[in-house]
Amino acid sequence: MKGIALLGAPQALWPKDLKQKLSKANTQENLLIGVDRGSLLLTELGFVPNLAVGDFDSLKKSELNRIEAAVSDIRYSVPEKDLTDTELAVRYAFEDYQVDDLILIGSTGGRLDHFLSNLFLVLKPEFQSYAENITIWDRQNLINFYLPGKHTVTKAPGYDYLGVVNLTAIQNLQIKKAKYQLENYSNSFPMSFSSNEFLPEHDSFELSFEKGVVAVIQSCDLDRYQNL
Amino acid sequence: MKGIALLGAPQALWPKDLKQKLSKANTQENLLIGVDRGSLLLTELGFVPNLAVGDFDSLKKSELNRIEAAVSDIRYSVPEKDLTDTELAVRYAFEDYQVDDLILIGSTGGRLDHFLSNLFLVLKPEFQSYAENITIWDRQNLINFYLPGKHTVTKAPGYDYLGVVNLTAIQNLQIKKAKYQLENYSNSFPMSFSSNEFLPEHDSFELSFEKGVVAVIQSCDLDRYQNL
Repeated sequence: MKGIALLGAPQALWPKDLKQKLSKANTQENLLIGVDRGSLLLTELGFVPNLAVGDFDSLKKSELNRIEAAVSDIRYSVPEKDLTDTELAVRYAFEDYQVDDLILIGSTGGRLDHFLSNLFLVLKPEFQSYAENITIWDRQNLINFYLPGKHTVTKAPGYDYLGVVNLTAIQNLQIKKAKYQLENYSNSFPMSFSSNEFLPEHDSFELSFEKGVVAVIQSCDLDRYQNL
Repeated sequence: MKGIALLGAPQALWPKDLKQKLSKANTQENLLIGVDRGSLLLTELGFVPNLAVGDFDSLKKSELNRIEAAVSDIRYSVPEKDLTDTELAVRYAFEDYQVDDLILIGSTGGRLDHFLSNLFLVLKPEFQSYAENITIWDRQNLINFYLPGKHTVTKAPGYDYLGVVNLTAIQNLQIKKAKYQLENYSNSFPMSFSSNEFLPEHDSFELSFEKGVVAVIQSCDLDRYQNL
């Protein structure tokens, strides 16, 4: 089972045609999770979350009532908690609902301390084993996470660019079969190797490293006049 | 002298009233830098950059001609370089123009491998000594960087929230006189302590740590109906 969680970051950054994509996912009995305001946004899109997580502080009473009437599994968080609402949602999705993969939507942009919480989530020991099963997805970016080892990273249709980001200290990072190669790179701090590309003759590239956590960001340009 | 660099990330994330703010800055003989497409955007706003840096690959010939006719200091970069255009701009600003501080605008959102390059720039040994003099600024976020020591971080008007993000391994991180305190936190990986707040009775909080680099993100909500 796949899980899809909608968070509360700017809707303008949602993947294109999100409603249609969620409709399709919904017919396949995936788990739909609303994180805080994301719960309301899911109902506004016409979906009933299977699980809602949050303190719901920013919702009006009537909005929260609507969610409470519709959603069978609501987990209330407390603001002074150690884990963010998103981290709680990840825990419940993998532990209680046994999802195989989880996609986080509405998790980028807006307040960047929130985005970085989401991006760095997989670095926490509790969540590290889920790293390769968590995806951050927005209109211009598809972010996957990798643990040490050898990986073949496949090109996602429509995403032309490639960034390889060590989120931690890293040992022997190698990028092969991409436009810009990297050989045995080791470093003690995060770095974003941006603006790389898949080779025209390959629909994948080879990534390997011995220590650390790496994010691979596939991205695309928007029409520059689209003003996004 | 202050430097202000405009990069090519989404204009929708520019600080509010950017044109007026740049006009005011421009009368004070600050250094205005266009980074790649940012050079064109500055001319479209009615400003002539003092310095333009980039490979300008994404510009039409006529657009580049316009920049070349107007800008007296143009530095052409090569795409296969080790440093990004932004990193080159930072180097030229501090080394050649001796700016005291540099604000990066148009450096967030869009392609997130680019944003993370900008965010992690201050971690590179070449740029680390400039860390406390570089600011990333967008519509919802004001990001400042700190090196080890004791710091008093002052509240920026209009930014209600506070995130403290160790971008590297960190030693003895302390947050005092904020809503959520932190005592002697040490960690080997980046983490975003998000959703903190200044105390109503203080217009600053106390930050200290012994090793690592920390970003402080002051942020604000947008009206949720404003849709970005």
